[in-house]
Amino acid sequence: MNNIPENHPRAESLKMRATIETYRNMGLVANAGPIAHGRGEAFDYLLGEESIPCVKNDINVAAALLVNANKSVISVNGNTAVLAPESLVKLSNSIPAPIEVNVFYGRTNEREQKIANFLREHGATDVLGIKPSEKVPHLISARAQVDKNGIAAADVVLVSLEDGDRTRALLDWGKKVISIDLNPLSRTACDATINICDHVVRALPLLQKAVIELHANPGHSRALLHSFDKRKSRNQVLEYIEKRLQVLRSTIN
Amino acid sequence: MNNIPENHPRAESLKMRATIETYRNMGLVANAGPIAHGRGEAFDYLLGEESIPCVKNDINVAAALLVNANKSVISVNGNTAVLAPESLVKLSNSIPAPIEVNVFYGRTNEREQKIANFLREHGATDVLGIKPSEKVPHLISARAQVDKNGIAAADVVLVSLEDGDRTRALLDWGKKVISIDLNPLSRTACDATINICDHVVRALPLLQKAVIELHANPGHSRALLHSFDKRKSRNQVLEYIEKRLQVLRSTIN
Repeated sequence: MNNIPENHPRAESLKMRATIETYRNMGLVANAGPIAHGRGEAFDYLLGEESIPCVKNDINVAAALLVNANKSVISVNGNTAVLAPESLVKLSNSIPAPIEVNVFYGRTNEREQKIANFLREHGATDVLGIKPSEKVPHLISARAQVDKNGIAAADVVLVSLEDGDRTRALLDWGKKVISIDLNPLSRTACDATINICDHVVRALPLLQKAVIELHANPGHSRALLHSFDKRKSRNQVLEYIEKRLQVLRSTIN
Repeated sequence: MNNIPENHPRAESLKMRATIETYRNMGLVANAGPIAHGRGEAFDYLLGEESIPCVKNDINVAAALLVNANKSVISVNGNTAVLAPESLVKLSNSIPAPIEVNVFYGRTNEREQKIANFLREHGATDVLGIKPSEKVPHLISARAQVDKNGIAAADVVLVSLEDGDRTRALLDWGKKVISIDLNPLSRTACDATINICDHVVRALPLLQKAVIELHANPGHSRALLHSFDKRKSRNQVLEYIEKRLQVLRSTIN
């Protein structure tokens, strides 16, 4: 998977595969990370590997939640950290909100440290989640651990590629959860306060841009939050995929 | 991912993930294998993780192609070998047709041997593809290598999770290609003589059953092959997914 030609029609996708594989070998991405990445690839394929129009409003609403939070946190796992470190740091600075390393599979302090160091190498100054001391209520095992100055204290948490049980537990704890999940039918996407059905590498820069625009025009947040209809948001995404399949069906014959 | 509870609603899927991971660590599954497996998981999720009705006919037609071949071969890669060794051996015995180890990524003789030994441990007697000496015309690199007594000599080749370029090259070589590919829009699925849009672990036993039935009723093959309409077959699969998304959209709200 090395030496990917720049003119390959799916060069970006192949490069991301190589990145996931490289950092899996270096211990930043969990053993389960490549399979999760593959699932995302398939759903992204259905979207046409682009940020679809109806998701732009969801991103604006998510930005309004982040800007209006008392305390927001960006929760990152290995896959997200290695695929979009600069975008995570820029978003963190723009909100501003700390990044919390919060991995699901293969949680060890060594892996937390590696991910945190990787983010710091890309400019992150405020990385939480190393040796976390708090626990999400009603969740068991290492996956319940969160930082007392991060997720535990936050009212709005941005997650990506998140486990369904943990999303549910964060909501039950009273947090608002913004998820970035390419599977619009996953438990996380269905349960989250708002789901952004887009690839993290595209969604994060769009989210940062929306945050900057809201800082310049703070009065716009209220209208965005007031108008958001979660059911309508999800239905628009599913209808988009249905219509795209119809178009592909008619064109590939 | 160990200790998966038997009553977990998606226990089978989680066990397959663990299998892919285990055999990746043992060198049978390529580094790219888990990502490919994840893509399959996502498409299978859209099918409802079951063999959908319209695919049953495709399986019967594929069985007719195999039974009527002058020489058919079952081409296997690491993922398929470790997920369905017994089913591969049973199908191989029922047709009868040899199994050819024919991997795409990370092709080394050591890996070919490991996969062949794994299949022999599960009862395979006729495993080809070790130190293959022939090449698929117009394909470059190690991925062109095929066995002179297997794919090179065959008129019908069964492949799963196959690369699009290689499928195209096999067709250009005059072979009929039966693919098992969960992505109905992949180049392999679109180009193959017939695609079975189903998970290998479900499709292979169904295919073996269809082969046994055709051996008992050989006159049925001609009608199956005559009636097959590739465009209709693919459209039925895509329509099924579209309708399933519509149903999910109406029920999850």
